[in-house]
Parts: sequence; structure tokens; C-alpha cells
Amino acid sequence: MAVYTDITEDELIRFLAAYDVGSLTSYKGIAEGVENSNFLLHTTKGSYILTLYEKRVNADDLPFFLGLMHHLAESGISCPLPLPRADGDLLGTLSGRPAAVISFLEGVWLRRPEAQHCRAVGRALASMHEAGRGFPLTRANALSVNGWRPLWQNSEARADEVQAGLREEIATELADLEARWPTDLPAGVIHADLFPDNVFFLGDRLSGLIDFYFACNDFLAYDIAVCLNSWCFEKNGAYNITKGMALLAGYESVRRLTPEEVEALPLLSRGAALRFFLTRLYDWLTTPAGALVVKKDPLEYLAKLRFHRAVASSGEYGLRREEASA
Amino acid sequence: MAVYTDITEDELIRFLAAYDVGSLTSYKGIAEGVENSNFLLHTTKGSYILTLYEKRVNADDLPFFLGLMHHLAESGISCPLPLPRADGDLLGTLSGRPAAVISFLEGVWLRRPEAQHCRAVGRALASMHEAGRGFPLTRANALSVNGWRPLWQNSEARADEVQAGLREEIATELADLEARWPTDLPAGVIHADLFPDNVFFLGDRLSGLIDFYFACNDFLAYDIAVCLNSWCFEKNGAYNITKGMALLAGYESVRRLTPEEVEALPLLSRGAALRFFLTRLYDWLTTPAGALVVKKDPLEYLAKLRFHRAVASSGEYGLRREEASA
Repeated sequence: MAVYTDITEDELIRFLAAYDVGSLTSYKGIAEGVENSNFLLHTTKGSYILTLYEKRVNADDLPFFLGLMHHLAESGISCPLPLPRADGDLLGTLSGRPAAVISFLEGVWLRRPEAQHCRAVGRALASMHEAGRGFPLTRANALSVNGWRPLWQNSEARADEVQAGLREEIATELADLEARWPTDLPAGVIHADLFPDNVFFLGDRLSGLIDFYFACNDFLAYDIAVCLNSWCFEKNGAYNITKGMALLAGYESVRRLTPEEVEALPLLSRGAALRFFLTRLYDWLTTPAGALVVKKDPLEYLAKLRFHRAVASSGEYGLRREEASA
Repeated sequence: MAVYTDITEDELIRFLAAYDVGSLTSYKGIAEGVENSNFLLHTTKGSYILTLYEKRVNADDLPFFLGLMHHLAESGISCPLPLPRADGDLLGTLSGRPAAVISFLEGVWLRRPEAQHCRAVGRALASMHEAGRGFPLTRANALSVNGWRPLWQNSEARADEVQAGLREEIATELADLEARWPTDLPAGVIHADLFPDNVFFLGDRLSGLIDFYFACNDFLAYDIAVCLNSWCFEKNGAYNITKGMALLAGYESVRRLTPEEVEALPLLSRGAALRFFLTRLYDWLTTPAGALVVKKDPLEYLAKLRFHRAVASSGEYGLRREEASA
């Protein structure tokens, strides 16, 4: 949540002249998106999001992100649509940064989602996976299994400051996941960060998915694992199997998981928990005290990791299989 | 610029039920207002600002601020209008904080205002002063001459950390201003913080004044002094007499200054410069390093203070008087 770059009204007006958006009537920096500066624009034609891509985003990845949003929107997925400039480009330059104008999606994200919303998210995730098939660009997942060890090496020496014994526990966990990580599950374009704040609802209807800036190519079921972690645990740390069941059933109403995916789900869920644990741990150890940034507690994901380690089969997440009762 | 408090969609929807604003379609925390949490709401009826008043604002002052905005809007001043609840109250409670829903004013603030904008601001300020006459509530200016010494005492011991010799210079300045501060100029409701980011324009037309959370009763000409400081200096520190002339002429096109006000303007301008110097100095010395808050440089206002000290008469600001050439 940040606005890193301010922009003057005359440079913004000049920038917007290349878009078919009418005349600017207001713009406000909004507290959304950690990596970029975002502004909500009002114009005589409607509302738009203006995103300035800050240094933490690799400019080479922008054609993938913007192209994907465009591809998904054209495939019927409700997501923000990058607007083309007069020259057809989806990307311009503002205040020395790559910048895009994106359609504004009405909706609110749910601070306290219920099972019915988990079902809708599962369905939307599977639809996104299906729609992603035709997208020609690819991007490796820098935060998958190969990325965890370098991330861990940045925090390892200080891990025990956060909790005694953490250094040894994570080292063991990481080695085990590296050794056992699957190599041949169904793969495709994944969102990779579909937390509740990236899913909008209008009333109880899912109105869209946002923030594709971690999207990449990886195992489709890994995306489900990210969602199980971020949607199906209660604030007190307990896994809510009703929500898990709803999310998985929603997903399978569009795309049925293969037996290999079903078997891999506990391991993928451990990996997803480790991934968010590691980035949070790094931010926790490096964000200066007193900074006005909400530090997200890495221990929340340590608890989830431990939960997944004890899961014997996907049935414990709420996945229903006829075979199970046969 | 901050969002201190997040709100859940269901508490917001319950809160909005008391207002005639239609159904919520989105809400975003916006990077505007230092003292409060602000959200831009979209509903089926339009756009609104939701303000949650945080601890730095004294809740006892809220009826003055909201009542004033209501009074000014009814008097034809373009400013945000607090919406009444079903029970007629302008103030509700949300997330344990006093909260108000306020009409959304289209417009952008000018990062680089020109003389014509200064003229418009002068005119709007005088119109606000005229419109404020009928407002029955009063609020003392806690940041006028009587408030400066307590503020100074919080920073005095460390002032030389910012610039050598500062401690002695400010002590002398403060004593001089206390001794010579006027006591009987025309007074009324002033904005007290009409910086460029609190004035909106649509094209070159002034579309409204915002942020009345420093408004109070004080000398009207002190409000002009605040504007001369915040609108009429260039980034390089030079006073721009063309802008000053435009601002003062704009003001006098609505309300002519008395001879006493004309005479007092250099002293009031020194006082206004000292007031912003002192609050910035305090924030400079107390904001932790690394905090994601833009620290405003107190030395900008020290330079302005020194400029005003050398001003012999209001003519040097660009005030035109027939007598001067007679």
C-alpha cells in the first residue's frame, strides 16, 4: 500500500492525450498495490486505474502481465483491461516510469470471506486457468521451489530472532520440499497471488480478479494451494474445511483435478506456505522500525506450513472423491 | 497521506445504510489528508469521500469543521458537503471512530500553479471570508501566536541540529513577533491551511476548496499571509511578485483590505512562515528515520521567514494602492 511517485497534472494530461478516456476531472493516489504507484482517475468518460511501475517490477515482465490481462479479459474473465494507446501500445511512460491505464473494476474485497465466496473463487481460478491456455507468452515463477533457497539465505542467519528453532526447522523443510517437489503436473498460466484482496465482489457475486503482477507459468494446482492458504484459514489459525471444500468444489466444477494433482496438493500447500513465509520473513527482518508499512507476520505462514505438514491426503482439505467412500 | 484504519465491507455497508447514497460498489483508501483516514467510495448514486477522524483530531472540534463546510456550501462556496444521516446528524461512528460521508469534489490540485491560479485563490479566499460571517460556532486558532512558544519549546534544544545558529535566530524572532503581534484586525473564520493541495481546479477554473480541519477564528489577513507563503514562492525560494500581485488583487476584488491590514501584512507573513516552520521542525526532529512519510523541509519556511523580515511594506508583496503613486 503506497504511492511512491507523485505526478503533476500537466504531465498526466499530456500522457492521457494518447488514450481514448475523455478529459481528466480528478486523480487520487490509492493505498493499493505494494509494488507500484496506483491512482484512481475520474474522467468525463468514467473511472480508470493508472499504474506506474516502480523499480521492484522488472520492466521486461510488463508485456507478459499486460498482455495476459488483455487476453483473459477477451476470454471472458472479469479482470482489469489495459487500455491501448493511440499507437496500439499497452504501455506508456510517465514521470520516467513505465505506466498503463487500466479499466476500473467495481467491487470490494472481502475482509471476512465465507464459504460461498471460496466456492466462487475456486470457480474463477479454474476459469482463469482454462482461459490462460491460449496465451502465447511465458514467464517463469521466480518464487517457486528454485527461488526459495536464495530467499532463505538472505534471512537464515537472523531467523531465530523471530522464533527460537526457526533456522533449523526451515532448513529441514526447505531441503525436504526441494527433494520431493513434483516435476510433471499439469501446468499453465497461474495468478500466484490470489489472496482475498485481489478478488472483488459486488454483493455475493464475484465481480473480478485483479493484480496479475505475480502471474507466471507453473503447476495449476500450486495456484489452488495458494488459495487454500489465503482463503481457508480462520484468524485464529484453524483450517476451515467447509471453506476448503467449497473452494475445491468450485474449482472442480470447471476443471477436474488429475489423480497426480490430488496426491500432490498437501506438498504444494506446504510449498505455498513456505513461499509466503519466506517473503514475509525477509520483509519482517529488513523493514525499518517505525516505517508506515504494515509488516505481515511471517509466523502466520509458519503455522500454516506446520498444518500442511501433518496433512496425509487431500481429503483433509475437503476434496471430495467418490473413490474415497467406495 | 495515510490510511490508518481499514474497514470491513459489512461494517461499511451497515454504516452507509443511514445515508441517502445508494449501494456501495467500491471503496479505496486514498493517499490524502495527513490527520485522518480517507476513502473514495463509488456507489450506485455517485462518488463520495468517507473520512474517519483519527486521534490527532479533537472530536470536540468536529461539529465546527463539519458545520462550517455545510454553512459555506450553503453560502455558495464550492467545498465538500458533509451528508446528513437519516437522523440529521453529520457525524456517525465507524470502526470506533467518528466518521463522515462527504460529497466528492471533482478537480485536481496544481503542483505548479501560475499567476492566474493565484488570482482565483485570492478571490475564493475572500469569498470564503465573506461567507463565514454568518457561521455561529467559533474555534480558537491553537496554532496562532500563543501556540508558537509551546511548540518551540518542544524543538528548541535540538534546533541547531538542523542548522547552526537556528536556536538563537528563532528565539529572537519569536520574542519579536509576540511583542508586536496585532490585536485588533478584522477577524472571522479562516481556512488557515489553504496550500495548493487544498484547492482544486478543473482546467483553469477553480472548482473548490477542501480540508477545513485547521479552520478557526483569527485575523482574516493572516489567512492571506498563509497563502502568500504557500502560493507565491518559487521552488528556488524566490518570491514571485507577479503571483503575489494576482493573489492580492483577486482577494481585493471581493473584499478590500483595511489600512491596518495592509500595514500588518509583512508581520503576519512572518508569523505564518514561523508557524509552518515550527510544525515542520517538530515533525522533522520526531519522525523516525526510514518512515514512509514525506518529511517537509522546515528550512523552506526559514528562508521565507527571512524574506518577510526584510519586507518594508505590503507593496513589496505586490499590493497595489492608488496612494502609493500619488
